Amino acid sequence: MNGAQSLIRTLVDAGVDVCFSNPGTSEMHFVAALDSVPEMRGVLGLAEGVVTGAADGYARIAGRPAATLLHLGPGLGNGLANLHNARRAHTPVVNVVGDHATYHKRFDAPLESDIEAVAGSLNGWVRRSDSTADVGADAAAAVAAAQDAPGRIATLILPADVSWGDGGRPCAPVPPRAPKTVPETTIKSVAEVLRTGEPVALLLGGAACRERALRAASRIAAATGAKPFVETFPSRLERGAGLPAVERLGYLAEQVAYQLDGIRHVVVAGTRPPVSFFAYPGKASDLVPEGAQVHTLAGLDEDVPTALEHLADLVAADVPPVLAQSHRPELPSGDLTAQNWVDVIGALLPEGAIIADEANTSGLLLPGATAGAPRHDVLTLTGGAIGQGMPVATGAAIAAPDRPVINLESDGSALYTIPALWTQARENLNVTTVVLDNRAYAILRMELQRVGAESAGPKAKGLLDLSGPDLDFVRIAEGMGVPATRATTAEELAEQFRRALAEPGPHLIDAMVPPIL
Amino acid sequence: MNGAQSLIRTLVDAGVDVCFSNPGTSEMHFVAALDSVPEMRGVLGLAEGVVTGAADGYARIAGRPAATLLHLGPGLGNGLANLHNARRAHTPVVNVVGDHATYHKRFDAPLESDIEAVAGSLNGWVRRSDSTADVGADAAAAVAAAQDAPGRIATLILPADVSWGDGGRPCAPVPPRAPKTVPETTIKSVAEVLRTGEPVALLLGGAACRERALRAASRIAAATGAKPFVETFPSRLERGAGLPAVERLGYLAEQVAYQLDGIRHVVVAGTRPPVSFFAYPGKASDLVPEGAQVHTLAGLDEDVPTALEHLADLVAADVPPVLAQSHRPELPSGDLTAQNWVDVIGALLPEGAIIADEANTSGLLLPGATAGAPRHDVLTLTGGAIGQGMPVATGAAIAAPDRPVINLESDGSALYTIPALWTQARENLNVTTVVLDNRAYAILRMELQRVGAESAGPKAKGLLDLSGPDLDFVRIAEGMGVPATRATTAEELAEQFRRALAEPGPHLIDAMVPPIL
Repeated sequence: MNGAQSLIRTLVDAGVDVCFSNPGTSEMHFVAALDSVPEMRGVLGLAEGVVTGAADGYARIAGRPAATLLHLGPGLGNGLANLHNARRAHTPVVNVVGDHATYHKRFDAPLESDIEAVAGSLNGWVRRSDSTADVGADAAAAVAAAQDAPGRIATLILPADVSWGDGGRPCAPVPPRAPKTVPETTIKSVAEVLRTGEPVALLLGGAACRERALRAASRIAAATGAKPFVETFPSRLERGAGLPAVERLGYLAEQVAYQLDGIRHVVVAGTRPPVSFFAYPGKASDLVPEGAQVHTLAGLDEDVPTALEHLADLVAADVPPVLAQSHRPELPSGDLTAQNWVDVIGALLPEGAIIADEANTSGLLLPGATAGAPRHDVLTLTGGAIGQGMPVATGAAIAAPDRPVINLESDGSALYTIPALWTQARENLNVTTVVLDNRAYAILRMELQRVGAESAGPKAKGLLDLSGPDLDFVRIAEGMGVPATRATTAEELAEQFRRALAEPGPHLIDAMVPPIL
Repeated sequence: MNGAQSLIRTLVDAGVDVCFSNPGTSEMHFVAALDSVPEMRGVLGLAEGVVTGAADGYARIAGRPAATLLHLGPGLGNGLANLHNARRAHTPVVNVVGDHATYHKRFDAPLESDIEAVAGSLNGWVRRSDSTADVGADAAAAVAAAQDAPGRIATLILPADVSWGDGGRPCAPVPPRAPKTVPETTIKSVAEVLRTGEPVALLLGGAACRERALRAASRIAAATGAKPFVETFPSRLERGAGLPAVERLGYLAEQVAYQLDGIRHVVVAGTRPPVSFFAYPGKASDLVPEGAQVHTLAGLDEDVPTALEHLADLVAADVPPVLAQSHRPELPSGDLTAQNWVDVIGALLPEGAIIADEANTSGLLLPGATAGAPRHDVLTLTGGAIGQGMPVATGAAIAAPDRPVINLESDGSALYTIPALWTQARENLNVTTVVLDNRAYAILRMELQRVGAESAGPKAKGLLDLSGPDLDFVRIAEGMGVPATRATTAEELAEQFRRALAEPGPHLIDAMVPPIL
């Protein structure tokens, strides 16, 4: 058994049985070894941002990591932005980065580069496998490290000769570090805060955005009057009819200031106190209202759902959660607008949908339109590095082949990782992509004003304009093997969305939605 | 004057007047400042790999750096692979990477990441601008550092508040470090080697791949019998009728062994001794023939053209260079093959063309077919990170608007940075892209055999297969605003290639060329 075979065997035994791959020469033994371990599924991406974003989406839904297969430092570099998003989501990911043979490195061949430096920038776990006999143990350690609470990026650097050498030994799974139990004293002290009667915001993140924790938070809110909020960009938010409807904290500092107006205590559960996404001249970075106290119920590496349930038992013993009623918007008619397209989605969203949300400014009104839709998951842009929606949708669809995946994608974000469409076609994934096509980096037009750069002239505005030439997403999608249509009215969007959901395989709808601003 | 304005003013004064840009919120003041410095041209790329590859292609042709504008660590990450290629080409590039405001960093906002670590992996120059008053001086230092012989990647990290703050002071250009003069003793000792009459290979790289040095090398070869070779992946190779025709060292170790068979001395000029691109089980990494001696005429940071001329004066005083005669292949007919498509290019290549060559396996026979074509430049994949051809062609066309740019692009490499086509359309660049469409990662099929992974089964082969679904490059190009056609015969390719060259603006030809292997 060679090193590559022992690696794949170990990954599969540890529950990692999907490998999103963009290999090169130094990974050819890994590729060859795929056929020796039938349980491992290799999924090809035509660019590394597709591969890493798909691993993120996969793990958010599957609850366990996928592997990626990347070609030396440049391959890791190309995948870095979506690994950044995965890091911010605390998604477990196991990168396998091929490298030159150990004895070849000193020759500084053209593809030689500092892989450790790039991998290290992810603040996760990095190891270089030095010998074939150790690859199995290194792989088991990588899978465990990725899953150590709350989840991280683990990068295993695999020299080509370590991969092709004989003497590989598969290794049994290593248990990851489980979330820590929140001390009872902490829960009691938060209960005291809630009993003061002073205005409290309960900020939920990470695992607190899933049903069990949301129900507990809803009970606490109902009993104490605390206002619950979900963090601005949750990794995976469970919502819809039958689940508590919890408002998300806004993207803009002004929104958050409004949402937290008058709050005296911010109780944080599974996330951190709110900060501004960007800095703006003369505006605060820290979004905790002045004079308010912060109380941490559970940190990122703690068992937040259990802590919330204990807290609910203390302060809301017999109070049930408030659950969203089933309610859908009317199907709108007429030309598409930033206001009406969300109603089409809300009216037609199927049961059990997974929404990969990179609609950005176009999606501002989406939460309201879908709050009473059937139960669904929302996967958001956790790290702010755009180009994440299509890959995340791809990975989510691999993880949940029986669930409809809907990728709401702004045109400005779509081009970074557009080859994800090809992988959707090749794997026949049930992904419906709706491109919100406003022909601009609309969010940057807004930001240009918000940062106080009022003097913007034609050159500046030109850099935020995606027309001239217009991108034709229908042709691009068709070129990658994904059937596509264009919608300019709400009726067309509804008809095309229905059809896309009814037919198996991927579809793309180019929705001509004017800018909201 | 704010920091951004002082930065752009300084760049322009130092000769950097093109900025390939993919900005975000933290770069909005830089974007706004573009209108205050009319000489600076901002060119939008829809993905960072386009931006960094275009900066590489631009500088290879313009002979001076472009700037890039990138959005924090993830933007730099997305651009890293083509910066790796630029690093290997010793291309001067000035990255401006926006970052959070200095006071915002401690909040670890979603886009916070370790920019220095990623930039540092490029072994170039990295500086963070700490105050608005220093931005001008920092920018001047960056431009100089990028141009210090032999050229490198300079990365200036620009916090948002340093950019928007008042008190910017433009700085006069700082002279870069010129190439060092090669000592006369070194030149004389190489002359002695050449006079031994023993078999000598003269390996040319970097600046030695331009006309002046090539003429000197040709004289030396003619007078002494030394065999001249150009390094495998030159940054910019001048060739064609009227210039010395110098064979490139092969990509495969076996080719190099054949080329250097019997050589006793390897004289290195502007590059390093030959090494294998990858390691293979049981094969050597060092491609200097056993027993041969290596002599360095000029290192990367030395004035290699002058050294070659001095050497030629010593050993070939009255010997003229041997120049390629004008000669073109006959236009072929019939179905396209890996053998005949290169003859179409050779037959029709226009005077003064710039070839961005990422044809990979499909381009094996290209050098022979174009050796007698009119004078042209070839820009190659210096760092081995695929996805470089389209961006490099884009940048080259910005640098030389009056020259025809021809991008020979393998299908396997095309998808990484395909949004380059949109920039070509927006800027109306005279780029003719010929996609060599064999529907496979053909080079990896070859490598799978070469690394000794004979056991490859259907899963392994599937990961190297780009069919299912077939990519339709005509639709993809049209979707990005580039007119496109498909050629299946040599006649069609010739007709379409002629038309593309005759019409202004970009064109793409999807050439259905079967795999060579």
